[in-house]
Amino acid sequence: MNSVCVVVLVMLGASGHSFRFKDLTDYVDKHQDHYVQALRDWVSIESDSSDVSKRAELQRMMGVVEEKLRGMKGKVDVMDIGTQTLADGSVVPLPKVVTAAFGDDENKHTVCVYGHMDVQPARREDGWATDPYNLTEINGNLYGRGASDNKAPVLAWIHAVEAYKALNVELPVNVKFLIEGMEETGSDGLNALVEAQREEFFSDVGSIIISDCSWQSSRPALTYGTRGNCYFSAQVEGPRQDLHSGVDGGAVIEPMSDLIAILNTLISASGQILIPGVTDAVANFTEEERKIYEEVDFDLDTYKSTIGVDGLMYNNKVDLLAHLWRFPTVSIHGIEGAFSGPGTKTVIPAKVTAKFSIRQVPDMEPAVVEKQVTDHLHAVFQQRKSPNKLKVKMIIRAKPWLADPKHALYEAGKRAVKRVFSVEPELIREGGTIPIARTFQDVTKKDIIMLPIGGFDDGLHSQNEKISRYNYIEGTKLFIAYLHEHIGSQANNIRSSSRALTGS
Amino acid sequence: MNSVCVVVLVMLGASGHSFRFKDLTDYVDKHQDHYVQALRDWVSIESDSSDVSKRAELQRMMGVVEEKLRGMKGKVDVMDIGTQTLADGSVVPLPKVVTAAFGDDENKHTVCVYGHMDVQPARREDGWATDPYNLTEINGNLYGRGASDNKAPVLAWIHAVEAYKALNVELPVNVKFLIEGMEETGSDGLNALVEAQREEFFSDVGSIIISDCSWQSSRPALTYGTRGNCYFSAQVEGPRQDLHSGVDGGAVIEPMSDLIAILNTLISASGQILIPGVTDAVANFTEEERKIYEEVDFDLDTYKSTIGVDGLMYNNKVDLLAHLWRFPTVSIHGIEGAFSGPGTKTVIPAKVTAKFSIRQVPDMEPAVVEKQVTDHLHAVFQQRKSPNKLKVKMIIRAKPWLADPKHALYEAGKRAVKRVFSVEPELIREGGTIPIARTFQDVTKKDIIMLPIGGFDDGLHSQNEKISRYNYIEGTKLFIAYLHEHIGSQANNIRSSSRALTGS
Repeated sequence: MNSVCVVVLVMLGASGHSFRFKDLTDYVDKHQDHYVQALRDWVSIESDSSDVSKRAELQRMMGVVEEKLRGMKGKVDVMDIGTQTLADGSVVPLPKVVTAAFGDDENKHTVCVYGHMDVQPARREDGWATDPYNLTEINGNLYGRGASDNKAPVLAWIHAVEAYKALNVELPVNVKFLIEGMEETGSDGLNALVEAQREEFFSDVGSIIISDCSWQSSRPALTYGTRGNCYFSAQVEGPRQDLHSGVDGGAVIEPMSDLIAILNTLISASGQILIPGVTDAVANFTEEERKIYEEVDFDLDTYKSTIGVDGLMYNNKVDLLAHLWRFPTVSIHGIEGAFSGPGTKTVIPAKVTAKFSIRQVPDMEPAVVEKQVTDHLHAVFQQRKSPNKLKVKMIIRAKPWLADPKHALYEAGKRAVKRVFSVEPELIREGGTIPIARTFQDVTKKDIIMLPIGGFDDGLHSQNEKISRYNYIEGTKLFIAYLHEHIGSQANNIRSSSRALTGS
Repeated sequence: MNSVCVVVLVMLGASGHSFRFKDLTDYVDKHQDHYVQALRDWVSIESDSSDVSKRAELQRMMGVVEEKLRGMKGKVDVMDIGTQTLADGSVVPLPKVVTAAFGDDENKHTVCVYGHMDVQPARREDGWATDPYNLTEINGNLYGRGASDNKAPVLAWIHAVEAYKALNVELPVNVKFLIEGMEETGSDGLNALVEAQREEFFSDVGSIIISDCSWQSSRPALTYGTRGNCYFSAQVEGPRQDLHSGVDGGAVIEPMSDLIAILNTLISASGQILIPGVTDAVANFTEEERKIYEEVDFDLDTYKSTIGVDGLMYNNKVDLLAHLWRFPTVSIHGIEGAFSGPGTKTVIPAKVTAKFSIRQVPDMEPAVVEKQVTDHLHAVFQQRKSPNKLKVKMIIRAKPWLADPKHALYEAGKRAVKRVFSVEPELIREGGTIPIARTFQDVTKKDIIMLPIGGFDDGLHSQNEKISRYNYIEGTKLFIAYLHEHIGSQANNIRSSSRALTGS
């Protein structure tokens, strides 16, 4: 039965290469404990890019990746991306970007796998059930910071290439890696590197693969869009310094009241954005999209119980998904400068700064959103006739990204998913932002596919982040299959296909 | 000239005691550097009662007071007031209350001086120009945490008694001290102590003096009222844990939006309290009060420039003072549980708790205010049809306090001010709350006078707190004079006089 299978698969290979899929997946199965141990080793390195006191660990992590890729006889290149200026004015080097190339056959398509080695902060006392830096397996889940975001996916790609090499199966495409260490804090230095390497590292790259995302349900998925983010600060400044609510309360027009009032004009109780004009540029919700959404396996009750809420903004799947993926929303994150501790303090805060963001979608333009939000807040503030001063700033301007889920890359992805999981993948979008996708697209003009292996409940950025052993190991097989399926599509076709749905 | 003065003063003494005022004030002048050094020693002890990690320093501070009073041969008694249960469930001892008695002549009136040794938190990086725990003299001002609130006033009272004793001038009244260490966090344990000591420590006390307040201008003042405080927390709880604004934004009814919306219904841009019924019980603003306010030396432009604002809620002196002293107001202090740090974080906070307070005045009742606020917030929250949960709690219920500024104690205070400063004192009220005043009044039934020596610009609870050397030293003389003037009023008269203006 097994050998028949192999024969069939070989016959299916469109390029005439012998594709020993069963041998490769057997190899993966046999090595899964080794893969888990590799992940344990990587998770044990606290490569938190947001905490500069952990920078040595992050540098060590980048060194471990470099050695791993060198050990596999890749053509490794470590690229300097300059320095970072900290809040106190001091300057520290950014972690170098590690690149590698496996194969340089001009007749083959070249894929570039992007990933990152840095992680979000995590402390046991934040509510972790286990030590976040000691990968712990419980009921088939591998708990640890960075397990799903993004260490296991990067390792799965490495193991995929390694399996081909170990079994002497010819790589069907050339594979490049580009691994950075600052993703969680905004990919400092990477934009400039991509620009600088456009005609160098990227010159022979045909397409870029990002596995820095997750499935939407227990069904495998291909991700074809992400939202952008316009992140704002709105600061109201009043007295020279904090006052006492007893001594001065009643005489002073308090900055907090002003700030609360203007924040209350951003979004309605039913989720409608109240800033004039902001939703005008949102692309029409097409019937085609609606059909894709209807296909997605998404249960509202499961979602409700996963996040622990009694109600959601929308009560049907399509509307809910649409508002997670392709409509903008406003979130108010918090207020800096006010009393935020436990207990009681009778302060009139002198200067308070709200942070809020608008998840932005095609065809909204950050510059336009910036003006609309700023004008709106100043207008409502002016109505209050407050003597305080308002300053509005847009501090993150990350554009959304959108691909065509019928593009040849996605067709290859669908075949790979079907081969490994025997199901059609869900076509999903991501509510969050992966700014580098948009940078890759705008700067390199390469096509991009997002090929997630993380589970829908992996808790990225949260306490008790995990990836399941199943997703990690089957994900490795998915990547093996994808490398093969790529050659089923014409490389030229892949290169020149339209990006009709790509937002501006 | 000087000796003539002394003779005149001796003749003015109403009781026949020889009152060597000039000798006493000369003694004070001669010892002023010694007094400043004593204040420096006390300020150097970080007796922050809000931070339990500083509890040893606070205990040390109480020990220093105890030793000082023992050294002056007072009858010192250190009273245990039990323990404090912390948020984590652990129990720590409260700092003991230090009492002392100087003189026990049954034929003399006995005053009890109340004060506190604990301070508000202070860190250099909060915006202090100098080390907050190293008393620093700049242009006649003594900068340090607790300098004005309340270490210098307590020292001034101690030095006043000390001067009488050093010069062998008989104390015209018996003087008791009651010094606590938890005032800044709500005088934990003190209410019970006052109850327990009603027939003991307080049995022979005729009146109670509080110098835990400040002048209103550069003119000395007597304080005859304080506002109360109804301090609330309003908590909106949504998802089980914090969510990611990209992943979940748009699907979730965010607790922050709910909280912002209900907070925006507390007070209007023009300072009107919007909670139905809350201002109904406010006592009428009488012509008599208006006249007192008109007499107060208060310049709106000076106040504006002192606190550093471009505009105030009211543009005439009487309305402004009335809203600082005898009308309620709402202050929103901040939000716990939301993102409050610098930088950007794309969190949807799961549980957010606003802290706000209503400065409360006669004849408002805390229990009524509690119901009005709770009902109002639940009503506006309900209109939003949010699936989140709202909890409203009143966590401080401190009643206002009001005395009759024509009471004999105040007449004695007026004479003492006139003797030292050659001006009539201003009669002022305090916008803040000194809950212990109301407790003393309700439990002991003793009459109370507030006799401030702090300057109007001392920045209590704020960065760069200070007391001027002038206020500290002349304040010591004021206390010396007050002890004498007390005997000019009939003790019985003082004990039995009405408290017609005292609010409920």
